[in-house]
Amino acid sequence: MVDYATSGVSLDRASEAKKLIAKAAQTTFTPQVLRDVGHFGGFFALGDSPTADVLVASTDGVGTKILLGLQLDMLDGLGRDLVHHSINDILVCGARPLFFLDYMAFGRLDVEIAGRIAESLAAGCREHGVALIGGETAEMPGLYRESDFDLAGTIVGIVQKDKILDGSKVVEGDVLIGLPSSGLHTNGYSLARKVLEDKIAAGTLKTTRLSDGQSLAQALMEPHRCYLKVFGDLLTHSGLHALSHITGGGIEDNTMRVVPKGLHLQIDWGSWTRPELFEVIQKHGEVAEAEMRRAMNLGVGLIAIVAAERSNEFIALLGKREPAAFIMGHVSA
Amino acid sequence: MVDYATSGVSLDRASEAKKLIAKAAQTTFTPQVLRDVGHFGGFFALGDSPTADVLVASTDGVGTKILLGLQLDMLDGLGRDLVHHSINDILVCGARPLFFLDYMAFGRLDVEIAGRIAESLAAGCREHGVALIGGETAEMPGLYRESDFDLAGTIVGIVQKDKILDGSKVVEGDVLIGLPSSGLHTNGYSLARKVLEDKIAAGTLKTTRLSDGQSLAQALMEPHRCYLKVFGDLLTHSGLHALSHITGGGIEDNTMRVVPKGLHLQIDWGSWTRPELFEVIQKHGEVAEAEMRRAMNLGVGLIAIVAAERSNEFIALLGKREPAAFIMGHVSA
Repeated sequence: MVDYATSGVSLDRASEAKKLIAKAAQTTFTPQVLRDVGHFGGFFALGDSPTADVLVASTDGVGTKILLGLQLDMLDGLGRDLVHHSINDILVCGARPLFFLDYMAFGRLDVEIAGRIAESLAAGCREHGVALIGGETAEMPGLYRESDFDLAGTIVGIVQKDKILDGSKVVEGDVLIGLPSSGLHTNGYSLARKVLEDKIAAGTLKTTRLSDGQSLAQALMEPHRCYLKVFGDLLTHSGLHALSHITGGGIEDNTMRVVPKGLHLQIDWGSWTRPELFEVIQKHGEVAEAEMRRAMNLGVGLIAIVAAERSNEFIALLGKREPAAFIMGHVSA
Repeated sequence: MVDYATSGVSLDRASEAKKLIAKAAQTTFTPQVLRDVGHFGGFFALGDSPTADVLVASTDGVGTKILLGLQLDMLDGLGRDLVHHSINDILVCGARPLFFLDYMAFGRLDVEIAGRIAESLAAGCREHGVALIGGETAEMPGLYRESDFDLAGTIVGIVQKDKILDGSKVVEGDVLIGLPSSGLHTNGYSLARKVLEDKIAAGTLKTTRLSDGQSLAQALMEPHRCYLKVFGDLLTHSGLHALSHITGGGIEDNTMRVVPKGLHLQIDWGSWTRPELFEVIQKHGEVAEAEMRRAMNLGVGLIAIVAAERSNEFIALLGKREPAAFIMGHVSA
């Protein structure tokens, strides 16, 4: 039986570190900082009025999906992964993206790989109207193994102060609407790699097929889906109370970040068909259901929390761009 | 004889990669992007008017100073290093800092180290009025060795469009005014570590003393100096034509980034006393003078390029906060 701890990642250590960092960060807050650290993005107001522009920023990496990409020589989606993940993180705050900066660090700088990653970053940016205005490419022999590299980035977006989505509008009875993910996105790869280490070692990820004919390698490296275009104008729909981006921590932990204290989530785990990739990982590694729920998105990439009386209207509007959106639960007292 | 290539870092590969990345980035530029990638910061205008606010952003890491810090168990200045480096990068664009986000990546997340780094980041931010509004802490077994970590960050600042410093005002005859660095800052550490590997292995960096009594370890780990307070109101002084932050690439390469084509630098390399730390590194590693100039700041952390007829006035004003500022050359045709 494989779990996250076996794979070398501790969610408890992560949570402890986050607390220490948030405490240190709070000592730096100026009146322009609107929310505590810990939301999907950080909020910095450019003015005092209720309709002032607020910058929303988020830094993230693609995690150990890189190592799988290196093992499979499938690196071309990683830039897109990072940009899409980042756009989603500020989208769920109600913000639209302005610009992006990347950080690439190599043991031995591989010019060809750096160029491929940059092209993938630029493709994700172009498609969503985000300007890639800078970055840093570091060569650090001794810190990274020669062939390894790390990739992270920072996005900055903008939202009007009175249009911020931060969960404060969420009330009992609100409906949870799920949007399908395109795979693991950028979370749970340490666990997935541990589970599949026999297939990775044997080099059979590219020849093992899912029932739709896609190889396990393709399914695993499928880029993180971006939900910016799906939402479009719906981002300011008055029935939309909050959005949650399903990343590390899974459906419950991430959605609880935008649910006020005292309220709970009632999730109907049987309301959608879990994609085969997750079933394969769970079965092959005998991963406990609780661990799967904590580590992976299980087929749900983003959740909209919508006023109950507006949920049919919202799904109908959403359905024009995402017919597969579905009701997956509600908020309870 | 030790040079940068021996230490595992190639400035040629870096320059080649930068070109590829800049080319990809250009395909994403919207009309709001004011300058090409490659300046000390990226420029994103929030409006069309000549006095519109422009956001200036920069991403950077602290490089292999981390490895030396780990070897010496002297990690507490690294957060400050990163924040100060980042503030300087946008300061030389004429911008004042607004907020910062960090990226920490570990092989095995060390909660205590993460807390110490966060405290150091927060200290640098507090001291300069910068809000630490977010970040990412990643645990990536397999990518980093268990005890290793990487640290990078992104700063966002603001400048009025007509107050941008980008070198376009620089003319023949302008005077170069140097400001002392506090040591290597955050560049040249792969070379320094290679040169000093015998002392690192023997554990004698802490017992080898410079003539002022400071140990070599202390001198090497001294945090990057921040020049924000030194400049203060002088940032908009009409005699100030450009600023250059002396990072990887050294005095000449960095200053040429803000000197228009056709103009050259006449640097009087004997106009300041090179700090002993650089002499020790050069002598111990028999490092060629050209290599030292390309890899290190040699005691000059920032250079102001000032109109010749205003240079005495500027030095007098600067002298109130930095008496050690000195004329180190001029711009020639």
